[in-house]
Amino acid sequence: MTMAPTVDQTVRAAGEHALIQRILARLPQPGWLVVPAGDDAAVTRPVPREHEVVTTDTLVEGVHFDRRFSSAADIGHRALTVNLSDLAAMGARPRSALLSLVLPDTLPVADLDALMDGLLGAAAPHNLAVIGGNITRSSAPDATGRCIPGAGPLIVTITAIGSVPARRVLTRAGARPGDEVYVTGALGGAAAGLASLQENPAATGDAEARYLRPEARVRAGLLLARNKAATACMDLSDGLADGVRQICDASGVGMLIDSSLVPVDSGAAAWCGRVNRDPLTLALAGGDDYELLFTVRPSARGRLRGVRRAIGELPITRIGTVIRDRRQRVVTDAGEVALPDGFEHFR
Amino acid sequence: MTMAPTVDQTVRAAGEHALIQRILARLPQPGWLVVPAGDDAAVTRPVPREHEVVTTDTLVEGVHFDRRFSSAADIGHRALTVNLSDLAAMGARPRSALLSLVLPDTLPVADLDALMDGLLGAAAPHNLAVIGGNITRSSAPDATGRCIPGAGPLIVTITAIGSVPARRVLTRAGARPGDEVYVTGALGGAAAGLASLQENPAATGDAEARYLRPEARVRAGLLLARNKAATACMDLSDGLADGVRQICDASGVGMLIDSSLVPVDSGAAAWCGRVNRDPLTLALAGGDDYELLFTVRPSARGRLRGVRRAIGELPITRIGTVIRDRRQRVVTDAGEVALPDGFEHFR
Repeated sequence: MTMAPTVDQTVRAAGEHALIQRILARLPQPGWLVVPAGDDAAVTRPVPREHEVVTTDTLVEGVHFDRRFSSAADIGHRALTVNLSDLAAMGARPRSALLSLVLPDTLPVADLDALMDGLLGAAAPHNLAVIGGNITRSSAPDATGRCIPGAGPLIVTITAIGSVPARRVLTRAGARPGDEVYVTGALGGAAAGLASLQENPAATGDAEARYLRPEARVRAGLLLARNKAATACMDLSDGLADGVRQICDASGVGMLIDSSLVPVDSGAAAWCGRVNRDPLTLALAGGDDYELLFTVRPSARGRLRGVRRAIGELPITRIGTVIRDRRQRVVTDAGEVALPDGFEHFR
Repeated sequence: MTMAPTVDQTVRAAGEHALIQRILARLPQPGWLVVPAGDDAAVTRPVPREHEVVTTDTLVEGVHFDRRFSSAADIGHRALTVNLSDLAAMGARPRSALLSLVLPDTLPVADLDALMDGLLGAAAPHNLAVIGGNITRSSAPDATGRCIPGAGPLIVTITAIGSVPARRVLTRAGARPGDEVYVTGALGGAAAGLASLQENPAATGDAEARYLRPEARVRAGLLLARNKAATACMDLSDGLADGVRQICDASGVGMLIDSSLVPVDSGAAAWCGRVNRDPLTLALAGGDDYELLFTVRPSARGRLRGVRRAIGELPITRIGTVIRDRRQRVVTDAGEVALPDGFEHFR
């Protein structure tokens, strides 16, 4: 008989089976879920007449989040959101997710509960169901370099699955010369918030909130796809400059970005004023905004208007033009300059 | 322009984009893969008229494998095989997988290549395509407990997706009193091999090979499902005793296992002879065998014969009976005894 864990226990004391039961008890079971989590695998009925869209992303403690300022609930929220953002970029409707948790022994059960609160809180608005996963211990190298179970980073891997009608999929590869370049929301806020929190983990403000609780542009992606408004789309996990490069590479085109049109997040602008940094560089190179970058054929402006009307408050801003010549340049008052580097792991 | 990495570089020196390109170049692209890996997400055409089966499993260095005796190719092979085994237990045909790699900075590119060799080698016989994934740095706590990127465990998470006709799904929940209990292959080999390798990392032999290169019983699972031969099924990742408990719990039944019928792996028996251990305990409690445990209604013996004929060399052995009373007992010469404990993480 497995004992129910208490919130002040560590995950190690609670034990794997008890933790799994604790999580399973919280998961909704929609009608399309033929066999729910808890068996060897989950079984689902696919969405009729739609293609399936699948993505996976991992958050590693110390690499993608810092527990000095990201709470367990923030981490759970972020782990799902970065995956939802990838589905949004393809125009897909999210449906299910699988969750793999690598847990340090000393993690309190209360933190695991909070992580699930954040994750399931980000899932609920989309009716996304967690349909599987697993839990294991973390590890870290000892003095000889051999990995020992127990201490180690908290790691959250999510695979998210969604669907999209066959001819509505958005990719990075559809941009054509003459298309207009757009971005949702405002940029640089998450990067400013992260920089602020790294200096002062107790800092609060709009930019800090923007970093801690990113929002995936699921509805915008859905509308762009279903209205056939966009020719190419991706999400800005690694910054605008990286996004511009990726769409250009995949589509075999170039882009001119007009620096005066790039929407800078107001929290980022305020932070840049305080620390005397250039807000445009932050908006171009800063990651973690999870806005959508997309291209629109000029003849599809009417469709884009339809998306704007349906989307409500989220701004959509034209920031440039797709060109045949495979350059990626930023047009400023001082002339054309090269794009700054984006973020890359291992560099 | 990203430079192509060389095999004697570390993954840190090679850089994320170069490593991703290196992996993407190796991946097959079947016709049902509408958008392959490399975009924000992969897009697939579901298998017509079948349900989808999804599972995820993670291997953590120092918890699930030891690099003193598991090569990078062994780790890649194992990471996929443990997921294939879960699909096999549901009677599903594997189709696709997503791969998340958490890499220590010092890992040589040659090891990443070998890991992919092992993984793609295990995928090829099933025509399984890797359709997505991501790569990130590992981390480990410093003296103050704060996680720092760079050093840290190698972690491989795979999500595997397969399909099965709607009325052919195998679960743990279908066993009924009177059903006969069967197991594929022979048990205890992997546990003996692991114990031997922990004592001598250079040890070679049948049991060691059995541990290092497990095989998922995909074809057996498919045949059991498509012939409607089994009432319940699961894979023995955590040992026979754990499997018996899980099927009994899910089905609301008990089981009597006849100790004289349990097939003990010959390598395990040899190792037990050398170290003076009880082979039956190893076969009951040892994990990592990835054989299938399943139940068959006596009236379906003809269907099971059909499975045996189609399956070729893999033994299928009757080891016990499902009973109404919710006990799980092993019948031995000395009378009935309780099942030994299975393996549980965090304990």
